[in-house]
Amino acid sequence: MRVRYAETDQAGMAHHSAFLPWFEVGRVELLRALGKPYQEFEAEGLHFPVREAFCRYWVPARFDDELLITTTIEEVGGASTRFGYRIMRRADAMLIAEGYTLHACVDNQGKVKRLPPEVRQVLRQEERAFS
Amino acid sequence: MRVRYAETDQAGMAHHSAFLPWFEVGRVELLRALGKPYQEFEAEGLHFPVREAFCRYWVPARFDDELLITTTIEEVGGASTRFGYRIMRRADAMLIAEGYTLHACVDNQGKVKRLPPEVRQVLRQEERAFS
Amino acid sequence: MRVRYAETDQAGMAHHSAFLPWFEVGRVELLRALGKPYQEFEAEGLHFPVREAFCRYWVPARFDDELLITTTIEEVGGASTRFGYRIMRRADAMLIAEGYTLHACVDNQGKVKRLPPEVRQVLRQEERAFS
Amino acid sequence: MRVRYAETDQAGMAHHSAFLPWFEVGRVELLRALGKPYQEFEAEGLHFPVREAFCRYWVPARFDDELLITTTIEEVGGASTRFGYRIMRRADAMLIAEGYTLHACVDNQGKVKRLPPEVRQVLRQEERAFS
Repeated sequence: MRVRYAETDQAGMAHHSAFLPWFEVGRVELLRALGKPYQEFEAEGLHFPVREAFCRYWVPARFDDELLITTTIEEVGGASTRFGYRIMRRADAMLIAEGYTLHACVDNQGKVKRLPPEVRQVLRQEERAFS
Repeated sequence: MRVRYAETDQAGMAHHSAFLPWFEVGRVELLRALGKPYQEFEAEGLHFPVREAFCRYWVPARFDDELLITTTIEEVGGASTRFGYRIMRRADAMLIAEGYTLHACVDNQGKVKRLPPEVRQVLRQEERAFS
Repeated sequence: MRVRYAETDQAGMAHHSAFLPWFEVGRVELLRALGKPYQEFEAEGLHFPVREAFCRYWVPARFDDELLITTTIEEVGGASTRFGYRIMRRADAMLIAEGYTLHACVDNQGKVKRLPPEVRQVLRQEERAFS
Repeated sequence: MRVRYAETDQAGMAHHSAFLPWFEVGRVELLRALGKPYQEFEAEGLHFPVREAFCRYWVPARFDDELLITTTIEEVGGASTRFGYRIMRRADAMLIAEGYTLHACVDNQGKVKRLPPEVRQVLRQEERAFS
C-alpha cells in the first residue's frame, strides 16, 4: 500500500486521520485471509462498529511511501473484539505507527449481540496463531 | 465554512477532491432551504446518485480560508437534475472554484424513476428564482 | 457543525475516521479563541504533529446531525500538549464521542523543541480555565 | 485496488468524491511507469495543480470491489497536460467510471511555467503510445 497524495497534508506528511482507514484495510484483509470476508458478516446481519480507536505515531509517513500493515486479533470477548495494528515502512522496516481498534458486535437493529460461536472460533484461531 | 487542515495536501492547498464534499454541503443546504431536506427524499425511497461531476479550480483554497458556497439548480429534467456551484473566498470575494453535478433519480432498488411532480415543482421554483 | 454525507459509510453512520478531523476543527477553533491561531505557530516555524490519538465512540453520529465539539487543554508539558475533546449531538446533548490527541512541538526541520514560554502561558491559561 | 469501507457512503456505494483520489493513484503510477515519478518533478520545483476535473459515473462501485484504473495522457499543451482515466471492475470488466483531469504546470512560487522539453517528451511518448 502506498501513501496517496490526497492523504498528505500541508505539513508534508500523511495526515494522522488517514491511519484509521489503513487499519481498516488491514482488518478487512485479515478477515479475508481467515476465510470469512467482512461482507459475509454483514450479509448475516452482523456488524462490528468501532467502540475505541487508538493510534501512536512514531515516524511520519510520506507521499508514495510503501507501507506494510500487520493486523492481529488481540482479544476476543463475549461481544467485542480487539484488533491490533502495526504499520511499517517497507523500504527500511521502520515502525511508522501502531494502534488498536475495539469493536462491538451488533445486529441490523444496532442491538449488541454475543459473537456467534463459529465467529469466535475463527477469530480465536488467529489469536492463538500470534500468541 | 472553513478549509480544514485535514483537507490540505503537501502542496499547501486544499486537495482538489475536497471540493466535491463541499459541493455536497451546498446541495444539502439548498434542499433544506427549499423546505425539503435530503433525508425526506431518502425516507420516501428516492435517491439522487451523482452521474457526472465537474469542477474548475481558479485559485487555491488555503487552510482556514473561509469559503462561501452558492448552489443553484441549473436544470430539472424528467429523471435528472443538475446543480451548479460557485465557491468564493469570503475575505475578498475571489472566485475559488465552480462546477456542477448531474444527478439521476432512483428508487431503493436503484431503478431510474421520473422525478415526482411535487419534487419537480420544488426544484423548478428555485430554478426560476435564479434565471 | 453538521455530519456530511461524504462522512457516512455503508453502515449508515459517520465513519469512525471522520472524528479525527472533527477533533482538529475543535483544536483549531480553540487556538483561535485563545488569540493564537494555528497559522501563527506555523509562520513562526512551530508545528504540533500528533503523537497519539484516541477516540471512544458512544453513540453513532448520523448524516446531517448537528454536533457540538468541546475542546480543552488537558496537559501542557515541556515539549508536548494534550487536547481533550467531547462531541455532543446538539438536538439532545447526547455524548457521541470523546477522545484526546497528544502533540509534540517541533521546528521546521522536525526537531523536537520545548514549547516557547509565551505559548505555554497561552495554553496554561486555558488549562486553568477548565480545571 | 479495492474499495475501502471508509470510501463507502450511506447509500451503500463508494462516495463519488473517492474517485478523484483514485484517478490520482492512476496518474502517479503512470508517471512512475514512464520513469519519472511525481516526486522528481516536485524536487525540481515543478508542480501540476489540477485546473479541471471531470468524472462520469456509470455503475456504482461497492465495498471491496477490485478496481482497475487505466490512465492515459490525452493532451500535452505548452503549459498544461490532460490525463484521462477509466475505472473498471476487475471481476467482470464492467466500466465503472471515466473522466479526466487538466493540469497546469507551475513552479514553487505558483507561477505558470512552460513544460520543460524533456518532460514534454516523456509525456508525448505516452500520448503516442495510445493514439
